[in-house]
Amino acid sequence: MSANNRQLRLARRPVGAATESDWDLVEEPVPHAGDGEFVVKVLQLSIDPAMRGWMDAAKSYIPPVEIGAVMRAFATGRVIESNHPQYAAGDLVTGEFGVQEYALSTGAGVYRIDPKVDVPLSAYLGVLGMTGMTAYFGLLDVGGFRPGQTVVVSRAAGAVGSAVGQIAKAKGGRAIGIAGGEQKCRYLVEQLGFDHAIDYKSESVRKSVRQYAPDGVDVFFDNVGGPILDDVLIRLARHARVVLCGAVSQYNSESGPQGPKNYLSLLVTRSRMEGFVVFDYASRYSEAIEDMSIWLADGKIANAVDIERGSILDFPKTLARLFAGANTGKQILEISG
Amino acid sequence: MSANNRQLRLARRPVGAATESDWDLVEEPVPHAGDGEFVVKVLQLSIDPAMRGWMDAAKSYIPPVEIGAVMRAFATGRVIESNHPQYAAGDLVTGEFGVQEYALSTGAGVYRIDPKVDVPLSAYLGVLGMTGMTAYFGLLDVGGFRPGQTVVVSRAAGAVGSAVGQIAKAKGGRAIGIAGGEQKCRYLVEQLGFDHAIDYKSESVRKSVRQYAPDGVDVFFDNVGGPILDDVLIRLARHARVVLCGAVSQYNSESGPQGPKNYLSLLVTRSRMEGFVVFDYASRYSEAIEDMSIWLADGKIANAVDIERGSILDFPKTLARLFAGANTGKQILEISG
Repeated sequence: MSANNRQLRLARRPVGAATESDWDLVEEPVPHAGDGEFVVKVLQLSIDPAMRGWMDAAKSYIPPVEIGAVMRAFATGRVIESNHPQYAAGDLVTGEFGVQEYALSTGAGVYRIDPKVDVPLSAYLGVLGMTGMTAYFGLLDVGGFRPGQTVVVSRAAGAVGSAVGQIAKAKGGRAIGIAGGEQKCRYLVEQLGFDHAIDYKSESVRKSVRQYAPDGVDVFFDNVGGPILDDVLIRLARHARVVLCGAVSQYNSESGPQGPKNYLSLLVTRSRMEGFVVFDYASRYSEAIEDMSIWLADGKIANAVDIERGSILDFPKTLARLFAGANTGKQILEISG
Repeated sequence: MSANNRQLRLARRPVGAATESDWDLVEEPVPHAGDGEFVVKVLQLSIDPAMRGWMDAAKSYIPPVEIGAVMRAFATGRVIESNHPQYAAGDLVTGEFGVQEYALSTGAGVYRIDPKVDVPLSAYLGVLGMTGMTAYFGLLDVGGFRPGQTVVVSRAAGAVGSAVGQIAKAKGGRAIGIAGGEQKCRYLVEQLGFDHAIDYKSESVRKSVRQYAPDGVDVFFDNVGGPILDDVLIRLARHARVVLCGAVSQYNSESGPQGPKNYLSLLVTRSRMEGFVVFDYASRYSEAIEDMSIWLADGKIANAVDIERGSILDFPKTLARLFAGANTGKQILEISG
């Protein structure tokens, strides 16, 4: 790590997939904490599919990253200097610190990690972080998942997907994961306890969902959109819920998104498709953290992370891993000293 | 009318639009009432967009019409012969009597019309029939429409659409209708009290919705699908509800349905899209009939019907009027003597 604060700032809005040249490397002096502020040394960056959307100018659920601004990222870090009454040097924290080595913070949106809770730091970007919150509220609140029901989740070996399946199992339901490749599918069933996994690269999703969920799908937690969404739509049970969490197959599309051709299945089965944004649940995160911590301690939920080690400069290629489907579990970039 | 019972029976499943040759004209003797049965002389046929779907073999919310069976249709009629304790010759009734001149019934699914209620017979196929029930439960129950909110309805000059807008007004909300042609649009605003009407044939739906609903659309009641659905999706307010009632633009499509490209707007706006089938509300029809009768009596809701007069043989071309957008209000075929 240099003596300066290295940052990646958004240079331009990508068309299609993001590439390295969409960010500028900028070096600034490490900031100092003013009154009511503290400085965080970034330890781990959360690498999320939503990042691609934040780079677009289009209206979305949060403002886009401005051209010239530090790329938005959730992270864990350690306080190294503080003029804030509630934070002291040495504290571990998690918050929206950005793709940079040091961040200045007023404490807004920052969560202080309790060192007495015996959980790996990475869990705060994973099952106890936005990832876990997204899975928890998406499945249980938006999806209204209940014991005995069947959830199908796409991108099941990804961060949110793997949490969704495990929460469904912890709640006494059935979990079917869709993922790309035999290795990921084995991981879902053998390591994470999914009932079934469907390899969309070698199987017909439509046929396999029928086989594994002969009575229909009660909740489809969709992270990908595209043809997989269409294949599951025609397998919905009555009064099913399709939870729209994302559409990773669509974010990099240059021809614009593809709509679900089979959306009229919602009418036939009296079902609903609903979008949500996890930040709306901020006031209820503690509920989820409580449940998830217990499940984590009981071994019902694994802290499924995929940690790359490197520097800020490795951010673009670590992000690209997500869209290549290379990660298994929550993708994290750990900034090595 | 002949001395026999003329019927239209489904001859084959159409590809694309239905044509006259998809039905066979069959003549049978007029039936006689066995024990617990009665015979209805059909007076008016309800002509519905859903009829096209009933002709397909595909799994849907009710079984398809079988090849060789009398074409399904809701109708009003008069009992001409009865061996049923609850029905007498002369009673006016409404039920699923089919495209034929005389129907034999056991009373299942039949509603006896109270002659003391001063309402035109056609209303029982319109605002007090399936049409009105669909509008009422779709807007208020599935859509959760509340006073002060804004509904946009497509195919607004159609039977269900015109009822949706009028119910929204009766409930103290704002109604914007989308219809084809200046004449229909004038009808919506001047005769039915819609706040605004958008002529999709001459205006940009997207721009006009923005103009008339600058704070976004709370409920979109969609009867058409296709590009209009896409245009309204990007104008949703937060936590909006898209009620899927039908997709008349898609039923005759030979290339298969077109999915809503802008469905991810549901995610950004935290909204839901939900399908429903009015028959599921059968146990609550009386609630709706009570409200609707009062609104009808108070002049808050018009019995908007478009009555063609003719014989059973005019059924195919009357159905075609719907898909040509030729009707204004509920399409009815009245069987003349």
